Amino acid sequence: MFSRNHEIAEVLERLRAERPLVHCLTNGVVKNFTANALLALGAAPAMVEHPTEAAEFAPIASALLINLGTLDELQRESMPKAIEAANRAGTPWVLDPVAVGPLSVRTAFARGLLEQRPTVIRGNASEIIALSGATARSRGTDSGDDSASARDAATTLATRHAGAVLVTGEVDYLTDGGPVLSCANGHPLLTRVTGVGCAQGAIVAACVACAPSPLVGSLTAAALLGLAGEIAAERAPRPGSFQIALLDALDELTPSMLAERARLG
Amino acid sequence: MFSRNHEIAEVLERLRAERPLVHCLTNGVVKNFTANALLALGAAPAMVEHPTEAAEFAPIASALLINLGTLDELQRESMPKAIEAANRAGTPWVLDPVAVGPLSVRTAFARGLLEQRPTVIRGNASEIIALSGATARSRGTDSGDDSASARDAATTLATRHAGAVLVTGEVDYLTDGGPVLSCANGHPLLTRVTGVGCAQGAIVAACVACAPSPLVGSLTAAALLGLAGEIAAERAPRPGSFQIALLDALDELTPSMLAERARLG
Amino acid sequence: MFSRNHEIAEVLERLRAERPLVHCLTNGVVKNFTANALLALGAAPAMVEHPTEAAEFAPIASALLINLGTLDELQRESMPKAIEAANRAGTPWVLDPVAVGPLSVRTAFARGLLEQRPTVIRGNASEIIALSGATARSRGTDSGDDSASARDAATTLATRHAGAVLVTGEVDYLTDGGPVLSCANGHPLLTRVTGVGCAQGAIVAACVACAPSPLVGSLTAAALLGLAGEIAAERAPRPGSFQIALLDALDELTPSMLAERARLG
Repeated sequence: MFSRNHEIAEVLERLRAERPLVHCLTNGVVKNFTANALLALGAAPAMVEHPTEAAEFAPIASALLINLGTLDELQRESMPKAIEAANRAGTPWVLDPVAVGPLSVRTAFARGLLEQRPTVIRGNASEIIALSGATARSRGTDSGDDSASARDAATTLATRHAGAVLVTGEVDYLTDGGPVLSCANGHPLLTRVTGVGCAQGAIVAACVACAPSPLVGSLTAAALLGLAGEIAAERAPRPGSFQIALLDALDELTPSMLAERARLG
Repeated sequence: MFSRNHEIAEVLERLRAERPLVHCLTNGVVKNFTANALLALGAAPAMVEHPTEAAEFAPIASALLINLGTLDELQRESMPKAIEAANRAGTPWVLDPVAVGPLSVRTAFARGLLEQRPTVIRGNASEIIALSGATARSRGTDSGDDSASARDAATTLATRHAGAVLVTGEVDYLTDGGPVLSCANGHPLLTRVTGVGCAQGAIVAACVACAPSPLVGSLTAAALLGLAGEIAAERAPRPGSFQIALLDALDELTPSMLAERARLG
Repeated sequence: MFSRNHEIAEVLERLRAERPLVHCLTNGVVKNFTANALLALGAAPAMVEHPTEAAEFAPIASALLINLGTLDELQRESMPKAIEAANRAGTPWVLDPVAVGPLSVRTAFARGLLEQRPTVIRGNASEIIALSGATARSRGTDSGDDSASARDAATTLATRHAGAVLVTGEVDYLTDGGPVLSCANGHPLLTRVTGVGCAQGAIVAACVACAPSPLVGSLTAAALLGLAGEIAAERAPRPGSFQIALLDALDELTPSMLAERARLG
């Protein structure tokens, strides 16, 4: 895995140099934190939601994030237009199917989006299982399934519909339809701050814009957020200050720290 | 009051064990802070706004929060559906009538919601007085009235329309139509961070889901937030760092701290 | 410039005494941070978005902010109504033309608003140049132009359409159509936190409500935010903790600190 560690360090190096502009169509709970996570990491955020403007902006951006957390009628109109514009321009896009499974509107909508072939799909185990058409056990936006249990669903989705699939959990699993990789970085406090998973979707988008493949971009994002969580937890043992320390850690992380401390498998 | 202090400590103990899932239909200014306050306390948030999905989600949740802070057409459609589904499922729900009184659309809407009998109504004095039909003195979202002045309005509302009413202020007052209880915990810095009152509505919802009655649930929430504010102010004398220290304090609070330091009357 | 320094110190003194209520129609990414920045400074925020209520609220408020960051159909209906009510009541209002230039819907909308004569227009160089009708170089919500390059556009806009224009950048430039003033306070970390520019629009609104002229109000806001950024950066060298230190610094700043350390030209 030595070579993988160097590969993701190079993605971070390129991200810092290129400062990718990530167009985020995301949910109202996490917009601020997502934008600050991208800025802390060294990328740039833009939230352009009007259907006409979303289509204008997608090809200007380095990558596009589609997060279904608070899907409303406006987003149901603007998201397909943004995706279509991104696909036409060759801009990579990430689908985060938040709470897909128990909720009907977003589940039907997410399945429809698969036809437009997301560059990466990022979700927890329940979301990935539900999106693949199998039966999942979610609890609100939390997963009721262990991330390892979604490995087959991830492979199915990647083979049929996406450049890569990232299943997040205590251990993250990733695949582009070939072998399933893993990343074991992380900390339980990451589940005590709202929007960490959603911000990761944006970080995946930023990394994919600077990576040789969707799989390596997703692996970089998984290691970055997990390692930032580890660093933050060393300094801030409670969720309020942890959230702030996490942003600081995203700023502080260097390519060589990432190469040394990423626990890839 | 010794027995009340133990009663609220037991609610916190149960909350930490059960981790209630609070469905929040709330305003766009405070969604992130509300979700983080619930997570810090040990509960779980979910913000599902689409009318169809809100009705699907309300019976899955442990409690429902209806906050009128930035009421829009979408929420005017989704809130009644979520409440109806919650009532049908026996899920408790909390009404936070933000800025009711001077603003016409939300005032008419809030009065209509009273017919669906909220489990708890939580507001500042001006909001509670205005909702009861009397004349109040508000200033934007701040109260122009002292919390004690809303005691009669709270009793009227609780008797006719709700399981309990919580009036927040320097001293909080609570009633289920019987005797008026009070909680004197708190700190002035709590008024220098946006969304503290709104987050308290969500905390009331979480506590009511774990309490023997709406009154005891509300009393727990009042003591929890007030005491967390006191602890945070000891460490952070300015509003930016106070906000973070407040989240940390919600995580740190134990049932025995609550039993010892709650100032109930 | 000695007299200017005293003039802006007096504005801050009056702001602390009067606690102006700023009605913010702003974008969904920054509502929370904007509200907290106003509260930390000593002003009060209110976000009332429903078209009917926005018109009811604008004359109650001390000032109105119109920020186009995530302009949607609801805001396209509520903003003109709020502005009309503000103009009728003599309430000052600030236009923040976020990302005007590359995006068509907001650009047409912003140009239409100029006819209602904003009290102050606040933007980065690309936005001010684009709004004036000249050709700008933006990158998402960031400016591709140096603030000094927008001095002519600012003079044109101020002469034809506004009480004053504030161009923000490494050095801020301001004019009411007469001589162009400047403020050199600030720190690069201010660009690593989302919503700082948007919060500045709200701070301009708060200051203008307490100032003898739109120009002096804008100058106060420029110095306040720049100096708060300098103080915060001394304590917090990374973006997460810097954001919190910035809020603390807005609370900590006194009129005499402002008089001493503002670098006006």
